[in-house]
Amino acid sequence: MLARITEPRDLDRLSNEELNRLAGEIREFLIESVSKTGGHLGPNLGVVELTIALHRVFDSPRDKVLFDTGHQSYVHKLLTGRQDFSRLRKKDGLSGYPSRAESPHDFIENSHASTVLGWADGIAKAHQVRGLDDHVVAVIGDGALTGGMAWEALNNIAAAKDRPLVIVVNDNERSYGPTIGGLANHLATLRTTDGYERFLARGKEMLSRTPVVGKPLYETLHGAKKGLKDLVAPQGLFEDLGLKYVGPIDGHDIAAVESALQRARRFGGPVIVHCLTEKGRGYRPARQDEADQFHAVGVIHPDSGLPVSTSSAPDWTSVFSDEMVHLGRERKDIVAITAAMLRPVGLHDFAEAFPDRVYDVGIAEQHGAVSAAGLATGGVHPVFAVYATFLNRAFDQVLMDVALHRCGVTFVLDRAGVTGTDGASHNGMWDMSILQVVPGLRLAAPRDAAQLRLQLREAVTVEDAPTVVRYSKGAVGPAVPAVGTVGGMDVLRDPGTESPDVLVVSVGALAPMCLELAELLEREGISSTVVDPRWVKPVDEALPPLAAQHRVVVTVEDNSRAGGVGSSVSQALRDAGVDLPFRDYGIPPRFLDHASRDQVLAEIGLTAPDLARRITGLVRREDDGFAPAGAGEQSISD
Amino acid sequence: MLARITEPRDLDRLSNEELNRLAGEIREFLIESVSKTGGHLGPNLGVVELTIALHRVFDSPRDKVLFDTGHQSYVHKLLTGRQDFSRLRKKDGLSGYPSRAESPHDFIENSHASTVLGWADGIAKAHQVRGLDDHVVAVIGDGALTGGMAWEALNNIAAAKDRPLVIVVNDNERSYGPTIGGLANHLATLRTTDGYERFLARGKEMLSRTPVVGKPLYETLHGAKKGLKDLVAPQGLFEDLGLKYVGPIDGHDIAAVESALQRARRFGGPVIVHCLTEKGRGYRPARQDEADQFHAVGVIHPDSGLPVSTSSAPDWTSVFSDEMVHLGRERKDIVAITAAMLRPVGLHDFAEAFPDRVYDVGIAEQHGAVSAAGLATGGVHPVFAVYATFLNRAFDQVLMDVALHRCGVTFVLDRAGVTGTDGASHNGMWDMSILQVVPGLRLAAPRDAAQLRLQLREAVTVEDAPTVVRYSKGAVGPAVPAVGTVGGMDVLRDPGTESPDVLVVSVGALAPMCLELAELLEREGISSTVVDPRWVKPVDEALPPLAAQHRVVVTVEDNSRAGGVGSSVSQALRDAGVDLPFRDYGIPPRFLDHASRDQVLAEIGLTAPDLARRITGLVRREDDGFAPAGAGEQSISD
Repeated sequence: MLARITEPRDLDRLSNEELNRLAGEIREFLIESVSKTGGHLGPNLGVVELTIALHRVFDSPRDKVLFDTGHQSYVHKLLTGRQDFSRLRKKDGLSGYPSRAESPHDFIENSHASTVLGWADGIAKAHQVRGLDDHVVAVIGDGALTGGMAWEALNNIAAAKDRPLVIVVNDNERSYGPTIGGLANHLATLRTTDGYERFLARGKEMLSRTPVVGKPLYETLHGAKKGLKDLVAPQGLFEDLGLKYVGPIDGHDIAAVESALQRARRFGGPVIVHCLTEKGRGYRPARQDEADQFHAVGVIHPDSGLPVSTSSAPDWTSVFSDEMVHLGRERKDIVAITAAMLRPVGLHDFAEAFPDRVYDVGIAEQHGAVSAAGLATGGVHPVFAVYATFLNRAFDQVLMDVALHRCGVTFVLDRAGVTGTDGASHNGMWDMSILQVVPGLRLAAPRDAAQLRLQLREAVTVEDAPTVVRYSKGAVGPAVPAVGTVGGMDVLRDPGTESPDVLVVSVGALAPMCLELAELLEREGISSTVVDPRWVKPVDEALPPLAAQHRVVVTVEDNSRAGGVGSSVSQALRDAGVDLPFRDYGIPPRFLDHASRDQVLAEIGLTAPDLARRITGLVRREDDGFAPAGAGEQSISD
Repeated sequence: MLARITEPRDLDRLSNEELNRLAGEIREFLIESVSKTGGHLGPNLGVVELTIALHRVFDSPRDKVLFDTGHQSYVHKLLTGRQDFSRLRKKDGLSGYPSRAESPHDFIENSHASTVLGWADGIAKAHQVRGLDDHVVAVIGDGALTGGMAWEALNNIAAAKDRPLVIVVNDNERSYGPTIGGLANHLATLRTTDGYERFLARGKEMLSRTPVVGKPLYETLHGAKKGLKDLVAPQGLFEDLGLKYVGPIDGHDIAAVESALQRARRFGGPVIVHCLTEKGRGYRPARQDEADQFHAVGVIHPDSGLPVSTSSAPDWTSVFSDEMVHLGRERKDIVAITAAMLRPVGLHDFAEAFPDRVYDVGIAEQHGAVSAAGLATGGVHPVFAVYATFLNRAFDQVLMDVALHRCGVTFVLDRAGVTGTDGASHNGMWDMSILQVVPGLRLAAPRDAAQLRLQLREAVTVEDAPTVVRYSKGAVGPAVPAVGTVGGMDVLRDPGTESPDVLVVSVGALAPMCLELAELLEREGISSTVVDPRWVKPVDEALPPLAAQHRVVVTVEDNSRAGGVGSSVSQALRDAGVDLPFRDYGIPPRFLDHASRDQVLAEIGLTAPDLARRITGLVRREDDGFAPAGAGEQSISD
């Protein structure tokens, strides 16, 4: 039946029974298909019926059906003509998120959470200005409602009574782990009550049946645990803002969801439809997984849900996780912060060992950073572990709250650099640029596991400035030993010649590639030093004098070239009056399509052979004396 | 009486009558003093009694009394030993915000709104970890509650029932203008009701007096405009989250506020105290000012409130304001966005002309940017006008929502560059750095009024990428005519020689200074070209070839040197193989103390004579052949 659905309107002719069969087929397809490729299995199993109902009630793409974060859009893809999941999240295959290049049914393709209500508000405003009556529907998880953007949007949406907008809260009680905070408690209250309208009906009936009122009725009204208010108005929060509330609805009952969405569609103003769903619904291994109900999986056995291959190589996250536990034991003043990603960022071991010293702030990077400033001011040392790309959300707080106040806060940036398969919005390629402007901030890019441990330890000793430790996604490579030191920098390769040609400044996990590059240069008769600055901000004072001993200087970093380490090294050389030919190699300033990390690096020319060719050209030019602009080297400024 | 208060504990011995007299004295002092210096008069007149009560009930600095934004801290300063307001916001005088350098009673000194709850949450957490029982009190305006950070913090604070924290909502119904959104409507409901407890008392009385219940009581309960819920539980929103609510309290009744704060202090968990205050209280000119009730004033006549000097020179904001109205007439698809600063950013004229095409989103820069992406996707062209420093809040949204989705959104950054008197957090010195990393974004820095009009017009024609127009604070300088063009760049000075010494790349409003610099260089026998790139991102393709005709290239910008225009020009030259001596002059990467703009520029060496001296040194070095590192030029890398 699924194969015959090529666009949403194909759903119109199906009976309720057929729709339920279709839901079953979709679930089977997801389990079979995503178990082969990996992907966000749990979230999608939770929204099968909801997505079917959405496309029954609304007319996409004329009506705009928008998904927050977007990892739950697989069912939407299946219903909008995209059923080849064989290369999901692989180069030239389907994106793991909505993608405007894939379909006119897709609108938001960045997977940073809590944005959808803002998008919906904007689109609804545009429709109003243009006199269109197309509907706008935003699907947002309960977890994403903990983000400040969601609040800002709700505050705006609620006040515009004349602007139709349907907000579907997909409430599965989780982000990765359980959703936290006062809002989660409130949603829990909503989940277990009848709703306002049914209460009113019951209350009216009760009151008219009761001829004499005295203590009993009053106590009935007043006796509920949280008082009268919760009994009569559990939907308070949303309605207090001015949003019509419909719910709670069983999100796995297609007819019920359809009915609620029809009501919401007709309402003519902003309305919330509160749907209760189960992450991993219908797939026992997911439901039994307490950690995150298969939020995102690798390749698994479809029956057991067990990983097909378990790598024994430690990854960066687990090295951090382990060292944090050691640090926690040694220093009682170290606390940890996560923005709803305790396990993915490797803080679960710390949380088990020190449950009173870890804070899950929700999907709220701003709060993670500003509360860290408060924690530091209060006399403890917070370590905020977060994916590199998500720290962008907290730039102002890092700058104004942490740095301006000279707070000793350590930010640990996981998934920095090219991450690949999650696409443009998940690459951690911005941090080493935007953090350059933060006065006093110190930034470490460890090259291997030992350096990660050591630099984390160095970072948490700094009590008067923000420190950052950033590392890559995935397996940590072999140890890269230093053969010497210059200032605070590690020399990874000493050419052993009096006046070497090239100084290669290697940043973080690119060290093995830079050593390979040096070998390739040597084959061309070009001698090179490879140095790892370890702390890339501020630039080590020993770097300009070291650079001055070479003919050419290059930097190699896993970050946008715009304003990155290359720019700051170049500036440090200028400030020291070292005006040598200099080249900065990194990620070109554009968004990167999803593919494996190696494929992306090859595509952008960040490989040893590519760099060797370019640097060779530059050195040959110097050999020949100053040549016309660009002669002999290839531009990488795409 | 005020003169005898040197620290908060001096308040303890005063009677209620004396406290009220003190409040009167403080108000007189503020009007007299701030009318001489300028400053945030209205907000401080509104918190006189509240601040007295805070310092009576809490024991600062052991208890942490924290102010959001901080422009309402003048009374706090007066009560904590700082009564010399003669040099308020002037070099070496009192800061216009809390300042840790001034007093141990101050904690948060950046004046970006909505941060205080996050700070308070962090400090309360630290107290808990360390076993301290010091109180934490956060004072936040109703306007600041519209910011997402406030929501993120409330969500965290509410769930920690065992962590005492007092939140004082200073509700004056305004940011600059009236507070917007669903929250504002909810607060309005709260203001006009008795509160939950009083209602319960009344209800109980009423129910026990009424022997027979039928339609009348039911209708009484049900008949309120927004239904039963609002009648019995107006404080819904905060209590739904799990926060104890006390209020509403008359914020100008010292005894009432004290009593409420005492209750809150004893409560032992998170609690909100809702105080109603009047901005500009007790000062007729402020109360009668409908625009912003004297939110911030220049030097004024204390009796009339009228400005002492009215400059007739147009400022950047009014030029933008005027051009926006023209554009709005010409194009029906242009809409405008402000984050609670309609008038300060110059959108009030547009709002008057096109009331249906302007959106005040609250103090919510994130929502401003993401809803702009939605507006653009919906087919209109939004212009989001915002102070440069506040755009930092929306970096992720500019990058991920606007740029990744190739939305035609124009950001207009007012108060860019050194602003001076408001201190470190109000300088707009970060935008040209962090925006460099945003793929596809185009950034204009107009040098004069005509260019601002022209570049704004160019910006709104771009429909597939974000555009940015950034300009300074205050009066716009005289027109700076172009003497020629190269590519898209304006040549401001042509040395008329075959191979000139220096290419000066002048950014924005620094053009007159760069022309003065060129004159000074000429006196030293150094010839120079001055070029204004107009669009500083991307770097004009004609710049490297033009640079190659000179011996030395310098950039001059009113922005942090880290990753700014200098860095991107330097990179463009490298990518084109133009390896000339290059220097980038701008703001050193540190926070700047408050002083006048000219004083700050002098202090950081961003003046024509300073730059002339440095550039002369560099050219002389080139004359002498390559000299040792740094010889002949002064470093400005402080």
